[in-house]
This record gives sequence, C-alpha cells and structure tokens, in this order.
Amino acid sequence: MGNSVKRLAVFGSTGSIGRQTLDIARAFPDRLRIVALAAGNNIDLLSRQIDEFRPKLASIESKKDRWKLERLRCELTTAEEIASHPNVDLVIMAISGMAGLKPTLAAIKAGKSIALATKEVLVSAGAIVTAEASKHRARIMPIDSEPSAIWQCLQGEKNTVKKMILTASGGPFRKMLVDKMKRVTPEQALAHPTWNMGPKVTIDSATLMNKGFEAIELSWLFNMPIDDIEVVIHPQSIIHSMVEFVDGSVKAQLSIPDMRFPIQYAIFHPERVPNKTIPRLDFLNIRSKPVENALTFEKPDMSKFPCLKLAFEASRRGGTYPAVLSAADEVAVDRFLAGQIRFTDIPKIISKALNEHRGISKPGLDEVLAADAWAREKALS
Amino acid sequence: MGNSVKRLAVFGSTGSIGRQTLDIARAFPDRLRIVALAAGNNIDLLSRQIDEFRPKLASIESKKDRWKLERLRCELTTAEEIASHPNVDLVIMAISGMAGLKPTLAAIKAGKSIALATKEVLVSAGAIVTAEASKHRARIMPIDSEPSAIWQCLQGEKNTVKKMILTASGGPFRKMLVDKMKRVTPEQALAHPTWNMGPKVTIDSATLMNKGFEAIELSWLFNMPIDDIEVVIHPQSIIHSMVEFVDGSVKAQLSIPDMRFPIQYAIFHPERVPNKTIPRLDFLNIRSKPVENALTFEKPDMSKFPCLKLAFEASRRGGTYPAVLSAADEVAVDRFLAGQIRFTDIPKIISKALNEHRGISKPGLDEVLAADAWAREKALS
Repeated sequence: MGNSVKRLAVFGSTGSIGRQTLDIARAFPDRLRIVALAAGNNIDLLSRQIDEFRPKLASIESKKDRWKLERLRCELTTAEEIASHPNVDLVIMAISGMAGLKPTLAAIKAGKSIALATKEVLVSAGAIVTAEASKHRARIMPIDSEPSAIWQCLQGEKNTVKKMILTASGGPFRKMLVDKMKRVTPEQALAHPTWNMGPKVTIDSATLMNKGFEAIELSWLFNMPIDDIEVVIHPQSIIHSMVEFVDGSVKAQLSIPDMRFPIQYAIFHPERVPNKTIPRLDFLNIRSKPVENALTFEKPDMSKFPCLKLAFEASRRGGTYPAVLSAADEVAVDRFLAGQIRFTDIPKIISKALNEHRGISKPGLDEVLAADAWAREKALS
Repeated sequence: MGNSVKRLAVFGSTGSIGRQTLDIARAFPDRLRIVALAAGNNIDLLSRQIDEFRPKLASIESKKDRWKLERLRCELTTAEEIASHPNVDLVIMAISGMAGLKPTLAAIKAGKSIALATKEVLVSAGAIVTAEASKHRARIMPIDSEPSAIWQCLQGEKNTVKKMILTASGGPFRKMLVDKMKRVTPEQALAHPTWNMGPKVTIDSATLMNKGFEAIELSWLFNMPIDDIEVVIHPQSIIHSMVEFVDGSVKAQLSIPDMRFPIQYAIFHPERVPNKTIPRLDFLNIRSKPVENALTFEKPDMSKFPCLKLAFEASRRGGTYPAVLSAADEVAVDRFLAGQIRFTDIPKIISKALNEHRGISKPGLDEVLAADAWAREKALS
C-alpha cells in the first residue's frame, strides 16, 4: 500500500491552493510530512505555518520583515534550492503566475514528482517543461480540478481518446448582457458562483481565460491537439470534465466543487484515500435552477468571452504566443484589480499583444522569458 | 493491438441483444467472426442469420420446423455443445431468463470468456456461477449498459470503491399516480421512454425489477455488498451508472442510450474501437424536460415500485431467495403480458413467493433449480 511517509514541499503555501494542501496534510499526519514551505510575501501566515508544520526549509520572496522568520527553527533558503532538495519527495507548485516557472524547472531537473497548480507554467513554456520532464523522468501531475478530472478518466484506458470535454462554470457573468460587462467591478468579478479560489484565477474564471489556460494545459499534459478539446459550460461545477473515447463512450469525474479533491488525488496517486473532512456529493441534493438536482450544459459564448477564443488561437499559433497570452493576461488582470482598466479591456489588451507579437516557433527558455517580458510591457502601455 | 479475429458464439441471436451483437459483427468484419448462433424459436430469423453469417454451428430450442435449418450448410447441435466448443473464443449470452443458466455454466466449465446479458443467471445462481468462473478461470463480462458503466468506471482503479450508484430511467410510469398503475396495459408497459429492448426486460424496467436485478448482478460481478449499491432515478438514461470512491471522487460513464455500446465494449475489452455506425452523445443537444440539456436525478419511490425493494430484500436474505425472486418475476411478467393479471399484481405475486419460500443458504445447483421450479409453480397459482 506504500504507507511510507511522503515529504512535501509546498510552493505558494499562503495562497488558496497552498492552504488547502496544508489542510490535506493535517488530515493525514501519518502519511504526509511538510518538509518545506515557500511563499511570496505573506510572512505572517508563513510564520504561523512554520510554527505548525515545523518544516526544515522555508523561503520567502519578499525582502521585508525577514527577521520574523529568523526567530523560527527553520533554514531560510531559495525556492530553487527547495525544489531540488534531496529530502523532498513531492513538490506542490501553487505559486500564482509565471513566478512558478523557475522553481518548477528546478524541480524537474532534480527529477521530482510535481503536483502542478500553476497553469501559467505549462501555458507559457509547455514545450520546454514537458521536454525537460521527459528527459529527467520527472512526473507532472495536475492539481486543478478539470485537468485532474481528465487524468482520473484516463486511468486504465489506453490511448484511444477522441476528445476531451472541458467543463466551465461560466463564472459570475454567464447570464449578464454583453453591454453590462463594461461596468463590472473587481468585487463582482471576484465573487465566483461555485469555486473559492485566489484572485488571479478567479478573474481568469470570470473572463473564461482560465478555461483557455486549462485547455492549453491539457494539450501539454496529455499530448492532445487543442482542437480536440471542447469547452462546455456546466454551471453547477459538479462534472469536472469528461473524456470521449473512440468508441463513443464518455467518462466523467464528479464531486462537489472543492479543490481538496484534486490536491489529495495528486498527492496520493495512484492511491485513493478516505478523507472524512471533505463533504460528499449527493445526487439528490444538488442546488440547481430552475430544476433541482439537475446538471446542465450550455455552449460558451465566444463573442461575450473573447479570452477563451484568444487562448485557443494562441495555442494554435504555438511558439511564444501562449507565453504572450499568459503574460498579457497577468498584467491586464492586475490592472483590472487595481481599478485602472475595465473588465472588457482585459481581452482587448491581450488581443493587441498577440497581434503585435512577432512569434518565435520552438523557442528556448530565454526566448519564452523575453516574449513574456515584452508582453508585460505591452500590456502596461 | 491484438488484431486477430475473435470467434463469437451468440446465444439468443434472434432477440434484441443478439441482433445488436450481429450489428457489431457487421461493423467489424475483419475483427469478428460469428462461428455459432443459438436461438429459442424464431427459426425464420435464425435461418436468415445463418445465411448471412455462415456459422459452422447453430442450435434452436424449438422442435418445430427444424427442417428449415437443415437445408443450410451448418451443423445443428445443442446450446451446451456450442458453449464449450473449442472454436469459440467469446460467448455472447443473451438468452432471456433462466434458460441462459445451463449454457452459461457449460461455457464457464470450458473456461470461455462470457459477455453476459442474461441477468437472471447471476440473480438466481450468482454464488455458483462466480465460484465456477473463478475455478475454471472463465471471465464474465457484463453486457448490460449499467453494469458495463460500472465496469468501465473501475478500469485502472484499485479496490477503493465506497459505493456504486446505479441509475434507472424510472421507466414509463415514473410520473404516473399510484392508483392509475392498476390499469396499466401491456402495450403501455412495453413502451419504454429511453431504451429499446426485449419484452421481458422492458416490463422489468417498468416495475423497476430490472434495476433490482442489476443491483444483484453488480453485487456478484464486483463482489459488492448490496447495501453499498444505491439506485438513483435518472430519466434521460445518459449517465449509465457511477462509482463513488473512498476519497469522495465519483466517476460516471455516459453515452446515448444504445445497447451496442456495452456490447461492443465487452467484445473488444480492454480495447476501445471506433464505430461510426453508433451516434455520439452531444451535451448541447440532450432532449430533457423542462430544461434542455439537463441530466436530472430523483429518488426512486419504493412504495410505488415495490419490486425494487423486493430485489434488495431477496439479495439480503441470500441463498435461494434471489432465485425465487427471479423465477416468480419471470412467470408474473409472462402472465401480465398474456393479460391474465394486472401490472400491480406482479410485485404481489413475487412477494408472496418470497414470503412462503423456505430458503436454503449456500444452495447447490439442484437446490437453485428446485427453488426456481417451486417459485414458478407458486407464481402460476
């Protein structure tokens, strides 16, 4: 049964996925040990996490108030060093955005197993990351609920996938009229109807860019042509995604919307472990309108959610285009949250960056980073 | 890829499952060869099937008009001989009712792979059949859509099932008032809303006995306690069943309602093979009321459909009780179709037989057959 203790390094431990990973660690004290924690700037929460989990290693991106960590019995080091440390069995990569790329590559080069929540890593540098993973025999597992659903549906199946059906809640503006979307506030966009997530991914969910990122992520994780990935709106977020096989049979993975399911699945894979701390799905008690206990499906409105279309286009163009997509989105979302631009400006900024970008096919890491930097500058102007 | 030709013996070739099995054989002339056909009494259709598929062996239960087969270049033999013939790789067992038991046991003793549609075989003699299959290393695969869905969901999973969620369309009388059910005609009961099947299984679907049989079948196929099998009404018949694992994750298998999916899956398992002759599921085009593209779930009404309750009770009692359940049901359904009894008499007859039966635990085959005969007599009186 492999009941040995698994040693985890959690990157982005103070974020939404990081905190839920620590919830899982709390539920399995005999199976999981937190040996390293890495955070961006929430030094107070990181201190409390170090107090509770007593990892050997920690890192913090921010230079401010580092003394708060120095009083703790824990070695302060860099994210890259943690990622490749010999005492780490599994890396949980949940740093938001492109900042996750370098520690992910460090973990890959050290041949680690990586549970990857940061979709920007595969979106921007999918070719490089998957090639390196294959070279160093590092295993990359998805943590996000939709790619995890696909992964679960593929268990025990041979390579006979016809298409992947990626479900999307549709976000908070699924039913909003197009002309009203100009006036959407950050507060409205941060109120996701079914999922409780960090701010970047929540805004990406409201624009449906998140679904585009997931499609690109799936294309790299499972070597799937982007046009064999279909996005279907499923407002209840109960079916987390589906696979249609060549024989016409479809498999789906379902649960209540709770990120701890995919996190736990990646941590223990291929084992499934009981965890009574997460509520179960009850098919006779699904809140849905206008009919109770209904799972519904709708076609996504590409004209209302142009980000979804942009993501598929960037993926088709390939090369450095997805890196530009991701970087421009990261800046545009930041600017929207800061009140500098409108919600409907997000796709405009990204579209402009993609149109003006001179793509490089088969880019190296430096070229990806250069495209990323170029797109950020573009998106700021 | 195992592209060798598979040699099939089809039992019940003139019935609904048998004919659809031959449809699959037509779609894969390079992969499947029909080497034997066995039927009950539809000698004209059997003749045409022999003409088309040119099997080496055939058998017919009925004594009438056998000369019609003798003109064909095909050896006439018994069902048992076909079941154990060395040229048969896979037995498709689709004889309706208890008549399937003896040829199934003959196939098991010959160590054949068996795709089993006749649920009465496992319902009546599950302990004997599974023990013999294990002894002779005969593989029993389900052909019915719900057990096939469970089987597909279990692929690549370890033994970590929490419960099986067996979906039921609810049949034609799901929304009928209880007092109206007395006056149900055979014609109404034979008009199933989502599935096109033979008469016995269609009536069993209208009483929900079919779902009880499937639950018992699942309990034997996958060694599952009957009380860890939950029946949920799902009127669209798109989700064919689901498995909840110990970690709270649920897997479902879906397709349009078409028996050729589970038949083909069992024939080629573990391979999945493209078959353009069967229509695909389109999540944006599901006919459902009152909301389009909705999959809905309801609790089964045990007081309106007492057969479902009787099946679970018979399974819990074990021994010869499920054989009595099945035999009494077979007779009661026949009598209802013949216009001798009311629709609502079916569960009464079965209940009476179960109540008056003196069960034997761990019965041998003779004891199962004796219980079956006793129950038939009881149900006729």
